[in-house]
Amino acid sequence: MTNFSALLSYPTHSSLFARFSNGTVVPIPLSEPNVPQNGVVVPYHAYAPSGSAYGEAVFLNYGREEDYRVLSANGVEVRGCVGIVRRGSGMSRYEVVANAAAHGVSAVLMYTEGEYKEGVERGTVMKGLGDPLTPGWGGVDGGEKLDLNDPRVSEKFPGVPSLPVSEAAAEIILGSLEGTRVPYEWRESFKSGGRIIRRVGPGGTMLNFTFKGKKEMATIHNVFAVIKGSEEPDRSVLLGNHRDAWTYGAVDPNSGTAALLDIARRFSLLMRLGWNPRRTIVLCSWDAEEFGMIGSTEWVEQNLMNLGSKAVAYFNVDCAAQGPGFFVSATPQLDDLLVEVTKQVRDPDSENGSLHERWTAANKGVNIQRLSRVDSDFAPFLQHAGVPSVDLYFGIDFPVYHTAFDSYDWMINFGDPSFQRHVTVAGIWGIVALHLADDPILPFNYLSYATELQEYKNVLNTLLDGTISLQPIAAAIQEFTTAANETEEEIKKLGMDQNLGESTVLRRRMMNDRLILTERGFLDPDGLPGRQWFKHLIYGPRGDTESKIDFFPGIADAICRKDEEREARIRHEIWRVARAIRRAASALSGEFFT
Amino acid sequence: MTNFSALLSYPTHSSLFARFSNGTVVPIPLSEPNVPQNGVVVPYHAYAPSGSAYGEAVFLNYGREEDYRVLSANGVEVRGCVGIVRRGSGMSRYEVVANAAAHGVSAVLMYTEGEYKEGVERGTVMKGLGDPLTPGWGGVDGGEKLDLNDPRVSEKFPGVPSLPVSEAAAEIILGSLEGTRVPYEWRESFKSGGRIIRRVGPGGTMLNFTFKGKKEMATIHNVFAVIKGSEEPDRSVLLGNHRDAWTYGAVDPNSGTAALLDIARRFSLLMRLGWNPRRTIVLCSWDAEEFGMIGSTEWVEQNLMNLGSKAVAYFNVDCAAQGPGFFVSATPQLDDLLVEVTKQVRDPDSENGSLHERWTAANKGVNIQRLSRVDSDFAPFLQHAGVPSVDLYFGIDFPVYHTAFDSYDWMINFGDPSFQRHVTVAGIWGIVALHLADDPILPFNYLSYATELQEYKNVLNTLLDGTISLQPIAAAIQEFTTAANETEEEIKKLGMDQNLGESTVLRRRMMNDRLILTERGFLDPDGLPGRQWFKHLIYGPRGDTESKIDFFPGIADAICRKDEEREARIRHEIWRVARAIRRAASALSGEFFT
Repeated sequence: MTNFSALLSYPTHSSLFARFSNGTVVPIPLSEPNVPQNGVVVPYHAYAPSGSAYGEAVFLNYGREEDYRVLSANGVEVRGCVGIVRRGSGMSRYEVVANAAAHGVSAVLMYTEGEYKEGVERGTVMKGLGDPLTPGWGGVDGGEKLDLNDPRVSEKFPGVPSLPVSEAAAEIILGSLEGTRVPYEWRESFKSGGRIIRRVGPGGTMLNFTFKGKKEMATIHNVFAVIKGSEEPDRSVLLGNHRDAWTYGAVDPNSGTAALLDIARRFSLLMRLGWNPRRTIVLCSWDAEEFGMIGSTEWVEQNLMNLGSKAVAYFNVDCAAQGPGFFVSATPQLDDLLVEVTKQVRDPDSENGSLHERWTAANKGVNIQRLSRVDSDFAPFLQHAGVPSVDLYFGIDFPVYHTAFDSYDWMINFGDPSFQRHVTVAGIWGIVALHLADDPILPFNYLSYATELQEYKNVLNTLLDGTISLQPIAAAIQEFTTAANETEEEIKKLGMDQNLGESTVLRRRMMNDRLILTERGFLDPDGLPGRQWFKHLIYGPRGDTESKIDFFPGIADAICRKDEEREARIRHEIWRVARAIRRAASALSGEFFT
Repeated sequence: MTNFSALLSYPTHSSLFARFSNGTVVPIPLSEPNVPQNGVVVPYHAYAPSGSAYGEAVFLNYGREEDYRVLSANGVEVRGCVGIVRRGSGMSRYEVVANAAAHGVSAVLMYTEGEYKEGVERGTVMKGLGDPLTPGWGGVDGGEKLDLNDPRVSEKFPGVPSLPVSEAAAEIILGSLEGTRVPYEWRESFKSGGRIIRRVGPGGTMLNFTFKGKKEMATIHNVFAVIKGSEEPDRSVLLGNHRDAWTYGAVDPNSGTAALLDIARRFSLLMRLGWNPRRTIVLCSWDAEEFGMIGSTEWVEQNLMNLGSKAVAYFNVDCAAQGPGFFVSATPQLDDLLVEVTKQVRDPDSENGSLHERWTAANKGVNIQRLSRVDSDFAPFLQHAGVPSVDLYFGIDFPVYHTAFDSYDWMINFGDPSFQRHVTVAGIWGIVALHLADDPILPFNYLSYATELQEYKNVLNTLLDGTISLQPIAAAIQEFTTAANETEEEIKKLGMDQNLGESTVLRRRMMNDRLILTERGFLDPDGLPGRQWFKHLIYGPRGDTESKIDFFPGIADAICRKDEEREARIRHEIWRVARAIRRAASALSGEFFT
């Protein structure tokens, strides 16, 4: 167990009253009314500043920049109002609230549309990952901590307070709004419930909003189980899942935790049969993920040096069983391995047949997503440390996310009634881990990465209308592809080598070192402009909320610029990506530049 | 051979006229009058801006900040004058000229005191290392280059022109100055020739100064000889020396190059006898070192990724034979190896006896310097890439440095008449390389590093008068010391292991990986404040010319601050150094933080 001391945030008091145009004042409910709340934190936004606001209610749609443009075009003035936004544009909670604050909104209410109209989605509004007091280094007890008033800390929190509310609560307010009619372009996207919203305000309804919270230092606990490798104990396969939950957490994170525990059980059975992995396997149970990946981020920061050379891969599972359908995201060198393993496990939702059949049938082929998101613990491993990563789950966008309805009841009724999806997750997770830990040569295929990079280049070229040359990237991909092809050939030869003497053992280790280090090549010590913590130049979150692509985040952000530096910045970011790809190519080939 | 395209700088026209108080105007000689100048570049400062100046001559002593304070206290106004400075305070040429420009001086003449009063010391006035157009990345042909007008480029060159002159030429001017008398505190430090200087000006003599130079792109050539390792070809021992010279370069760099070529000859003899090194040996001949370590820096930047995992150590030799006396600098884990090897080579200046005897007698013990300097090609390897490094030479501060007197004649008369010092350099260089390339377990002793860090902490504590706690560093050194002790024990056991099967081979490789990576732990991706290229937090050049210590450069600079942030910055830099030492400790122990 490793502990860190980190700044967390808890609610102390919340209230919300609406005063309608007829003069009546009603309290708006702030938590789920019909579910047991024992031990469940009341709905709040972690790290929201304390504050009160009294003002006219106004509907901000998703709170995107384009929504404010539409409001402005319709003559709606949001300054001084209490804004109501719906979640769902892909913007983080921080971005939504910070954007509202930038437009002069004095407090924000945030709701999520869906089946569970009384569910309230708790969540963090912190910007970035990890303990805000220890940006870039592990927040060990007694170590350096920034002051809470340090601008590097305060800029991570929105400038105005916010609260999550249920869709039902939001509709009480939204149904009463007067003023401008809901713009035509917003209407189509409403789910059924949204029909009640006719006007966006301001006018009709006043809101009296109060949130009080406290930020306080807490000890957080990451828990590890280590199975030491028998031959190469200094190479580690990391399997991780978080342990903290906003409410009952049957899906988030306990479905993942159940699978992790089942893996531990299965591995212990194997060990009783005499098995020991060639490389070390580390099972990780992270704390404080919900506050912003704090447990995993602090650990990655603390171990950055060792992870750089020792981590083979990180395999994350969070909300393992959300419903039907198999979803997997990975860095591309792991594609082949994942596809192979889906052939070896049964589909949990069919009488017979492999997961692979059902999965590829549903997606008309293999569909593996990439990891530019920051919504679970793979983010620090990949985006800060350059460790090849996987994230997987059954079901998607489950409706009780972060609400008090995320309970055992919901799981046995909807999420995974027979628990077969849990079993399948444990199966994939465990088999992938066995390959990564035991295969003499790591099952990494960098040709998939080359293909993927080539596609990104093509998409980018279309986006730029060919106005800016991508030749540096094209040349780098060519180099990377050559290295990947040559490496494949070498691996074939090495795999066929029957002599297991000193020389072969070393040659395989050297090859594995190359395969491990290649992903690190995509890191740049300078990181993304303005977000230096994010070191990976291929995958990472966009900085500009209007960015159109979910790869090459530095280039994507530069494209969104509207100033005169735009073109020069795009060119520079293109060069940086090209150099990153070349670094990866040289790591893969293992040769010095000559 | 690897080529880079880099911005170099050459002189096109220089002239200097003095107008004395009696009205006579005389040209001041700008090159060495009595040596053949065939193929030798006329004296200039590489990257000095072109410009003319006409103004009163003034003597600025070393051009340190304290010298300007003394001048000011004596009522001397230097603004608009042509300044004359002597070299020797440890400031770089860039610092001297930039400092003069900051005080309003319109052009700078720089001379070096010594035996060769007609020698003119050429040199670069660029700030930092490497091609100024490619800061942080390898300047490959066709790659990204900053524009010459980019502020990141122009800030690397002083704002006013400068020229080197001989001491003889300087004395023509200095002997004629009127105005204020030479301050008392400067006089003592004059070498014999300086007695002629009585007054500092301004007044008495006007100078008409012109320098025209051109900056132009040139292809530079690094040349390599690679002896591929038989067992671990992916681990490399690098031996390097530069090849470019300002003049004839008999000492600088050809005495080093001769030794390098002799090593190549000796290794080829060994290879004919059937020897092949276990690890790869790379002999490196760098180009454009004199312009600012450009050849080595571009190569290090280009190969940073691969160097990080593959480079065992870098052993630099530049001015190998300058005269008598053995001088060696190294990162401390190499101390033991160096000491041992000095016992195995003969002292070149004695009838019999080892180098070790003579060296330790002269220094009353072992005297190994450290590598915070940036005056040769070890700097990018250690200070940017964290590769354990060595630099050595016979003789010190040779009087014909960068002048046209650095010739074969000088070498056979003074530098190394019997060439025995060359032979000894090749001997040490080669034997150290053999150990690094062939020892099953690398001959690194990190206890020396721990001792050294402990001493730095003590010196720092004295400097701070105990006003700021060094507890974070003390705790980190404790951790490092424990890791070093445990590693020593492990190495002993591993060395005694007679079983040379797969397991032992891998365990030795794992140990060597730890020994290699430990030095990288001292790197911080954020680098030194304001000088991010310098990543090593233990060794690197000071940023503030008034800094008192030559280790912990980030802390040293923070101590020099005079603003209200001073204490907070010192504390933060202390934390950063502590974390760097902990990173190194964790790399050495090879364990994740648990």
